[in-house]
Amino acid sequence: MSEKTWSVYLSGEIHSDWREQIAQGIEAAGLPIRLNAPVTVHADSDDCGPTIFGPQGDTFWHDHSSAKLNSIRTGTLLAEADVVVVRFGEKYKQWNAAFDAGFAAALGKPIIVLHPPEHDHALKEVDAAAKAVARDPAQVVQALAYVTRGELPR
Amino acid sequence: MSEKTWSVYLSGEIHSDWREQIAQGIEAAGLPIRLNAPVTVHADSDDCGPTIFGPQGDTFWHDHSSAKLNSIRTGTLLAEADVVVVRFGEKYKQWNAAFDAGFAAALGKPIIVLHPPEHDHALKEVDAAAKAVARDPAQVVQALAYVTRGELPR
Amino acid sequence: MSEKTWSVYLSGEIHSDWREQIAQGIEAAGLPIRLNAPVTVHADSDDCGPTIFGPQGDTFWHDHSSAKLNSIRTGTLLAEADVVVVRFGEKYKQWNAAFDAGFAAALGKPIIVLHPPEHDHALKEVDAAAKAVARDPAQVVQALAYVTRGELPR
Amino acid sequence: MSEKTWSVYLSGEIHSDWREQIAQGIEAAGLPIRLNAPVTVHADSDDCGPTIFGPQGDTFWHDHSSAKLNSIRTGTLLAEADVVVVRFGEKYKQWNAAFDAGFAAALGKPIIVLHPPEHDHALKEVDAAAKAVARDPAQVVQALAYVTRGELPR
Amino acid sequence: MSEKTWSVYLSGEIHSDWREQIAQGIEAAGLPIRLNAPVTVHADSDDCGPTIFGPQGDTFWHDHSSAKLNSIRTGTLLAEADVVVVRFGEKYKQWNAAFDAGFAAALGKPIIVLHPPEHDHALKEVDAAAKAVARDPAQVVQALAYVTRGELPR
Amino acid sequence: MSEKTWSVYLSGEIHSDWREQIAQGIEAAGLPIRLNAPVTVHADSDDCGPTIFGPQGDTFWHDHSSAKLNSIRTGTLLAEADVVVVRFGEKYKQWNAAFDAGFAAALGKPIIVLHPPEHDHALKEVDAAAKAVARDPAQVVQALAYVTRGELPR
Amino acid sequence: MSEKTWSVYLSGEIHSDWREQIAQGIEAAGLPIRLNAPVTVHADSDDCGPTIFGPQGDTFWHDHSSAKLNSIRTGTLLAEADVVVVRFGEKYKQWNAAFDAGFAAALGKPIIVLHPPEHDHALKEVDAAAKAVARDPAQVVQALAYVTRGELPR
Amino acid sequence: MSEKTWSVYLSGEIHSDWREQIAQGIEAAGLPIRLNAPVTVHADSDDCGPTIFGPQGDTFWHDHSSAKLNSIRTGTLLAEADVVVVRFGEKYKQWNAAFDAGFAAALGKPIIVLHPPEHDHALKEVDAAAKAVARDPAQVVQALAYVTRGELPR
Repeated sequence: MSEKTWSVYLSGEIHSDWREQIAQGIEAAGLPIRLNAPVTVHADSDDCGPTIFGPQGDTFWHDHSSAKLNSIRTGTLLAEADVVVVRFGEKYKQWNAAFDAGFAAALGKPIIVLHPPEHDHALKEVDAAAKAVARDPAQVVQALAYVTRGELPR
Repeated sequence: MSEKTWSVYLSGEIHSDWREQIAQGIEAAGLPIRLNAPVTVHADSDDCGPTIFGPQGDTFWHDHSSAKLNSIRTGTLLAEADVVVVRFGEKYKQWNAAFDAGFAAALGKPIIVLHPPEHDHALKEVDAAAKAVARDPAQVVQALAYVTRGELPR
Repeated sequence: MSEKTWSVYLSGEIHSDWREQIAQGIEAAGLPIRLNAPVTVHADSDDCGPTIFGPQGDTFWHDHSSAKLNSIRTGTLLAEADVVVVRFGEKYKQWNAAFDAGFAAALGKPIIVLHPPEHDHALKEVDAAAKAVARDPAQVVQALAYVTRGELPR
Repeated sequence: MSEKTWSVYLSGEIHSDWREQIAQGIEAAGLPIRLNAPVTVHADSDDCGPTIFGPQGDTFWHDHSSAKLNSIRTGTLLAEADVVVVRFGEKYKQWNAAFDAGFAAALGKPIIVLHPPEHDHALKEVDAAAKAVARDPAQVVQALAYVTRGELPR
Repeated sequence: MSEKTWSVYLSGEIHSDWREQIAQGIEAAGLPIRLNAPVTVHADSDDCGPTIFGPQGDTFWHDHSSAKLNSIRTGTLLAEADVVVVRFGEKYKQWNAAFDAGFAAALGKPIIVLHPPEHDHALKEVDAAAKAVARDPAQVVQALAYVTRGELPR
Repeated sequence: MSEKTWSVYLSGEIHSDWREQIAQGIEAAGLPIRLNAPVTVHADSDDCGPTIFGPQGDTFWHDHSSAKLNSIRTGTLLAEADVVVVRFGEKYKQWNAAFDAGFAAALGKPIIVLHPPEHDHALKEVDAAAKAVARDPAQVVQALAYVTRGELPR
Repeated sequence: MSEKTWSVYLSGEIHSDWREQIAQGIEAAGLPIRLNAPVTVHADSDDCGPTIFGPQGDTFWHDHSSAKLNSIRTGTLLAEADVVVVRFGEKYKQWNAAFDAGFAAALGKPIIVLHPPEHDHALKEVDAAAKAVARDPAQVVQALAYVTRGELPR
Repeated sequence: MSEKTWSVYLSGEIHSDWREQIAQGIEAAGLPIRLNAPVTVHADSDDCGPTIFGPQGDTFWHDHSSAKLNSIRTGTLLAEADVVVVRFGEKYKQWNAAFDAGFAAALGKPIIVLHPPEHDHALKEVDAAAKAVARDPAQVVQALAYVTRGELPR
């Protein structure tokens, strides 16, 4: 039977290499998956609006214009994803990750959440809207291998 | 006139070779159809969650974590199908097959149900939501040949 | 703060008094809930089509015409429900209950499944699409009291 | 011209009296608004699942069963709201608030975010999806007075 | 259990008293149903556009302006109906009836078609999209009594 | 047959008394219609954002914060309207009127445009998406009388 | 600028060669269009159900089973069309053509109706839901050339 | 990670070369973008209806038939766009541009508005529905480079 290419959106934390680990795992397994992600260069993501459109006044509108520009990318890629992976790291508020999870849930997207056990209680609403909770990127790759190919680790 | 490739999802019973019969019939007729299906290895389907994410406690949550992981695949493939074929075999509860039929019906997918006459009364609600009720895989292939190419058995 | 009237659809098994138990529990607690249900007179549900529109030929079309007429009621009430409760009893195939669960799931309705533990494995896909699995009607009433009023059993 | 009753959902922080302040402001102004909210008794919200359905195994599934039960209420009331107000307090992760904001955004609901300036940068994605950012409950009441009645503070 | 008021739209033929028969049957049975219909005064339906907005040029645009004005009413009432009844009489083209049936079908509305057996073959596509085919208004009333109240003729 | 209350949204020009004329015509005719409109006090509509939330920096963000706050009202009332009337006066750009018309069109709302013939060519795209083009408020009232009650001027 | 391939569905009359004329016109003009159509072999369209699934009882259910099988093809191809052309010939009831037009209208598809002037009055509701009314296949080709390429006959 | 081709629709003003500037900028940067636009030959856009379908009576219906034919193209391309750019020039009413912006907003499309500062106040509702406001085509190209590739001007 011929094969679908799955679109997977990797949302959330941008301070560790979890996206690269997933990308390498997918490549190593040869899975039929196209990965998408937000812009992960922190400074660019913060300043893209004023960099392109000029100064926007105070910091609130500076942030606002960048966040809106970023949302063209994130909203579009998230809306066309087959699966959304949302990663919460150890640090920072990461409200944009939770926002993306809520956005994905309302669109009916299957969600895999990736976070350490210490966040279990604080993330219970997000986890309750998800199909699975993974603890490390390797589990995400295994889950995607199973979902797309029916392959389980032996 | 150029030709559409149809996506057909084969839901339901996993203990006989009906999917293979349909696949062979479609290949023999050269129909423009891409087939999709759930993971049909029974043990994998039962244990995929704990196999990947670790033990989940009692059997209820063991089942739960596997069922959710499976639903990433089944929900996605079903939602993008042009036609959904749902097979009910002679044995077992097969509630997941009826669940898939209801899911497909609510999405407005055309459904072909495949089951023996002995189930007619018990399946009347499912059949009422379907476009056709077939008795064997060959009829499904013929129906798909007609739907996609206008070809009837002569 | 003023109060919403919740619409709850009671789908599934028609051979025990579980709907009456829930109705009595809701009335006793004074919950702001409107209950709806399919026609639960078994013979009427089986024969309504031919009774109104005349004989429809063989048993398949007899069943078919009744099932379609019933689906006007069930599909409409289910689609406007805030919460869908689906009951699986000890006996029979009950494929229409699983069909309703799938239909409700695709519409994004919150589902509470009501069934004995012996069906846990066979119903794992249905349970995985649900918000809760209850074991008796009293738990359903408690859940609805919590959902609509925030009231927990003390 | 006759008047619509607006439904406003108050999501987020449950440790201060901001909901009461808004309720009092709305009552004082006689605005045509029906307020809704999640269950705000912290312990009940944490334990509702096991309290009703019995122990669920480890803490993860304990949380999970409660979060799912809560989501019947929150998802339903949020989906029927005309306006969603999301409050972020000074403390805690509050990922459920950001999740609700994302959920509301994907449903196209107009959002008013309520938070202190210190969260501006961390909440820029949420604020970018909102119609307004308020700093205190009185501003929310004023905004609702304007939206529903065209009344501005003089 | 409290009761829903059903909205039923009566589309199609305007030269016999079938709508009145259904209205009388519903009133006699005390059914919880609100009936809606297009404007059934033939001349008004033909000329409403130019009567209000002035002459529109040739007969094509005369018809066009009236048909568009009528569609505000028919499209709105049809879209909010719970059940759509479409009547085909013995005479005339009645393409607007078939158009309404298609419109209702695409919206997922349950349809009851009312027509004499002589039209069975020509209406097979419409009937295939319907929940029931009735032969006289009394059957429609009986079907609505069953759908709304579970009452069958005894 | 019982009667629906229609919701009609009056969008566009705020410098003449056309809304009052329509309101009076509807009241005089006793039509079952609830009218809604944006805030029509020009200064309030321009300054509502900063008036409530404080100064927003330069004029662009001043306008922006007001326009977003207004859109909570206009977007909500427009989305729940049965019919949208859009008025273009003789003067000003009135881009918000055309924006509302496009918004209504994408939602499938029936639109009645009200404008003088001198705008016919410039408004041809808007008129092409509308059900009718009226030249004065009295025609709008007549159209609404016909749509809601089937009444034509005699 | 790169080019979209447009999907055009040709619905309606099956007794003349209008589809071939359009296909030839499109090929001659080299337009980026993929045409789709129902099965146009009249006998096959009438008998496909019983031919594949066996005798279905009386003529009503014979027709019914064929119409449902045909609707898998027609409903799918119509729903994915960018433009729907509906042809009404001089003869026959052609209710399926009007049904398709209504179905397409409810899905928001742009419709081009093709019919002789003698049907103008009877088709006014269908024409009012259409983007254009053509009198011969050559006009349809010209319209499609303009829509897809901006080419007008010179 | 493999790359998505983005579809960008360029709506609005047709009297300057802004579309060509954007096209050249995209080509120069090698961005993965497919541009679409309305027919920009003014005379063709005005006369396409009567040119193909023959004279339509007075100027209103002349305009009407052309506007409807144009809307097949514009509505289809706009609805499948990932991003919609709407340009307002210095002159003319440009109500079709604002109509397109409203249409895009209701569909949830991310919008970039392109206009000089002199229109800021008159366009505040349109800008409030947009993700960004650009002042020249080069900024649009930079925004698209960032959205599609994460590239910022250095």
